[in-house]
Amino acid sequence: MLDILFLGTGAAVPSRDRTTSALAVRSGRDIVLLDCGEGTQRQLMVSPFSFMKIRAILITHMHGDHVLGLPGLLQTMGLSGRKDPLTVYGPSCLERYIRSAMDATEGDTGYELSFETVEDGGRYAIGDLTAIAFSTDHGTESFGYVIREADLPGKLDRAKALSLGLEEGPDLARIKNGETVRGVEPSQVMGEPRKGLSMAYTGDTKPCPAIPLAAKGVDVLVHEATYMSSEAGLADEHAHSTVGQAADDARAAGARYLILTHISNRYREREGLEAEARALFPDSFVAEDMRMFSVTRGSISFTDSD
Amino acid sequence: MLDILFLGTGAAVPSRDRTTSALAVRSGRDIVLLDCGEGTQRQLMVSPFSFMKIRAILITHMHGDHVLGLPGLLQTMGLSGRKDPLTVYGPSCLERYIRSAMDATEGDTGYELSFETVEDGGRYAIGDLTAIAFSTDHGTESFGYVIREADLPGKLDRAKALSLGLEEGPDLARIKNGETVRGVEPSQVMGEPRKGLSMAYTGDTKPCPAIPLAAKGVDVLVHEATYMSSEAGLADEHAHSTVGQAADDARAAGARYLILTHISNRYREREGLEAEARALFPDSFVAEDMRMFSVTRGSISFTDSD
Repeated sequence: MLDILFLGTGAAVPSRDRTTSALAVRSGRDIVLLDCGEGTQRQLMVSPFSFMKIRAILITHMHGDHVLGLPGLLQTMGLSGRKDPLTVYGPSCLERYIRSAMDATEGDTGYELSFETVEDGGRYAIGDLTAIAFSTDHGTESFGYVIREADLPGKLDRAKALSLGLEEGPDLARIKNGETVRGVEPSQVMGEPRKGLSMAYTGDTKPCPAIPLAAKGVDVLVHEATYMSSEAGLADEHAHSTVGQAADDARAAGARYLILTHISNRYREREGLEAEARALFPDSFVAEDMRMFSVTRGSISFTDSD
Repeated sequence: MLDILFLGTGAAVPSRDRTTSALAVRSGRDIVLLDCGEGTQRQLMVSPFSFMKIRAILITHMHGDHVLGLPGLLQTMGLSGRKDPLTVYGPSCLERYIRSAMDATEGDTGYELSFETVEDGGRYAIGDLTAIAFSTDHGTESFGYVIREADLPGKLDRAKALSLGLEEGPDLARIKNGETVRGVEPSQVMGEPRKGLSMAYTGDTKPCPAIPLAAKGVDVLVHEATYMSSEAGLADEHAHSTVGQAADDARAAGARYLILTHISNRYREREGLEAEARALFPDSFVAEDMRMFSVTRGSISFTDSD
């Protein structure tokens, strides 16, 4: 199961209802934070996720509404006794910004903090997950990320295995582990590997061919949709996407579900945005702060934790 | 009337109930922001104060829980169309931190932003208010601030003025304005000037003689009280104050009211802290996020806006 928790779903200027960008993805014991706008640490405190268990932080680009919560979160982790190392992935000038903010505010982490500069197509192992970066189009160095669970082995056809002479117990364990046992090869008795779940997050971007390409076949596409389609001119001017463009990308990628985020503070009601998206891509949702979507191979559901 | 709005009343690590340090003081049309922890811009958005009308920002020291909200607030003011110039007062390395954070995040203000490095005893005119900085003792460059309203002229003794031969209308206006009229001097008919209201804010500090000296006779002393008196050792180790030490300062300063803030997240209930303070200084209050205290010459009251 993939849990996608939206911590901040607003655009550059936060509002009463939507704070600046951050979301967290959980799969098993792995939690990855995507972007870290101002206030993320406090949103995490009222969420079901522990900020102490975040394994990695992925930053899409350097605009303030995506990174200004990072120094505070990193400091609070240290003040709260974190000892586990932490890697922050992002654009090339991220490390310098964070180091200088930490120095200026006498922030000490007390745990090993490292930075990795990402590049288009780069693959990064984070616990049992893989993150894949792709370049987007936002008028500055910017990336989206695909997060993939590891594929699961196929299911053992127990009856067939026993009929081929394998015995209950160690034989079956070994063949599940990929070994040839008593002349029986795994491919004879194991089903196809089951694909792990996956999601893609665009960060801020205007529509670009890289998005449906990178997000091909994902279970969930989290796409920025700063504006409704009637404001396509504004969206283009500010290098953002509209609801309709996000829906087009979801369709082109063949995503199962589309979740829209980074909503301009001009829109007070979710319903209009959601209706516009659903007319083009039926399984669309508009994120809200503190709403968590839980995705399995066959379902999506959501719960609110505020 | 002085309105003192507490935006964040927690210590270094925020909690569900208390975010990091910020308070705003309003007198007439002047609003001054004191410290700007992460999340201040959103607290202002749900408050009765408009962040667009802040005339100046005073920073006590460079620790993250007092400054990390500044880049976001400054950017949001610009994105919201602010044109009025803004001055930020604070320690010597404040400007460099802010300029570098703004550069790293491509933050553009669109209004004139200037910085003034404060010094012990420095006096700064902010609209009709005067801010006076005083050095405190927090193991880093740190200041407290006194905020004073201008004194008001005394009241005219109208009957006496008329009996001395002045006439209703222009004569009275001129003598109120400090002129000698028909041989009558203002001091013959005007009462004593009335002192403007004043407050002092310590920022983070251990007890030090500068506090009661600077805060002499203020209407309100806003004093940090990170710990209860039972944790005096911890308070000293971290260069913070206890509730009891804050009450001692209020008494020594002859303040009318004491308001405690910067409360450690170990204390969940306000009542215990308030009881400890009131046993030593009866007119004590413990601040809460989004609580506004309104102080007149003869009263204090508070309202909550969340």
